[in-house]
Amino acid sequence: MIEEVKIELEEKIIEESEKYKGRIITVKEYRVVLINGKETKREVVHHPGAVAILPILEDGSLFFVKQYRLPAKKILLEIPAGKLDQGENPEECAYRELEEEIGYVPGNLRLIHTFYPSPGISNEILYLFEATNLRKTKNNPDEDEFLEVITLNKEEVKRYLFENRFEDSKTLIGVYYYLYSRGS
Amino acid sequence: MIEEVKIELEEKIIEESEKYKGRIITVKEYRVVLINGKETKREVVHHPGAVAILPILEDGSLFFVKQYRLPAKKILLEIPAGKLDQGENPEECAYRELEEEIGYVPGNLRLIHTFYPSPGISNEILYLFEATNLRKTKNNPDEDEFLEVITLNKEEVKRYLFENRFEDSKTLIGVYYYLYSRGS
Repeated sequence: MIEEVKIELEEKIIEESEKYKGRIITVKEYRVVLINGKETKREVVHHPGAVAILPILEDGSLFFVKQYRLPAKKILLEIPAGKLDQGENPEECAYRELEEEIGYVPGNLRLIHTFYPSPGISNEILYLFEATNLRKTKNNPDEDEFLEVITLNKEEVKRYLFENRFEDSKTLIGVYYYLYSRGS
Repeated sequence: MIEEVKIELEEKIIEESEKYKGRIITVKEYRVVLINGKETKREVVHHPGAVAILPILEDGSLFFVKQYRLPAKKILLEIPAGKLDQGENPEECAYRELEEEIGYVPGNLRLIHTFYPSPGISNEILYLFEATNLRKTKNNPDEDEFLEVITLNKEEVKRYLFENRFEDSKTLIGVYYYLYSRGS
């Protein structure tokens, strides 16, 4: 029998202070005690959490949105996504964001993965849903959504993945899930 | 011929101010003009960038590290990773982090994906490498690395993925890449 080595890995917070409070994020600094007894400082970005939606049409093609991302200083090709409003649960948020961004509502929403995009620095959690049985409710994205909606079929998705045209974490995870779960 | 609709999506920065400067991150606020002429405020976390490494042994099993993540307030099971030091290129960083965290150096490093973990809020870029022809150089992680190293074979990786035991973006992308590219 192999005994698993159990190491106590937890850090103990001995002091915290808020350093920045914005509209979306809050930054806090923590003084923590490491497992060797030494102290260090941690910077943490507090974020309300977000959802992303992989919208799959009957014929197997997927919706994507092109959107300017100021932090990246370029237009990225992503699956629809958005931040959680206060008190909103992830399913409600996914339903709302999908309609706002592509003008469809999902007949089925299924949670695929829940993950931390950047766990070393931020507590942001992302809930990734698969959306099927899509029903069109309007012709255009909402007026305050500055994005371009496109669809790609499975062969195009594979090519785009190979050409590194998906450049953010939720889209890569969604696309890999889609290709892997459909066995090709 | 279908003509693609081209929308001008870019936002123009008209003012920026630094709001927080930590050891790792800097937070800036920007006033920007949207494509409809209206103004809005953006909060951006500036981050030095990071690497992650998918270390594959001869028999196809993978290395992972268990590590306490203060932002998530729990221990996560991740592939090895670390921030870029000033002036360091991603390959050097991947080589260094792999040895520091698991005590192996790679004979081959291949860049799989470059992505933004959280492009709505942060400029962090993550370089994800596949590491093969691994060579052991020491018995333990560095003293200031508080982590536990484990290996999982392909069947275990599939099971862990199915059980949602991978909870961060780089690890999910690495694991999906590994399973998808190995056709199973």
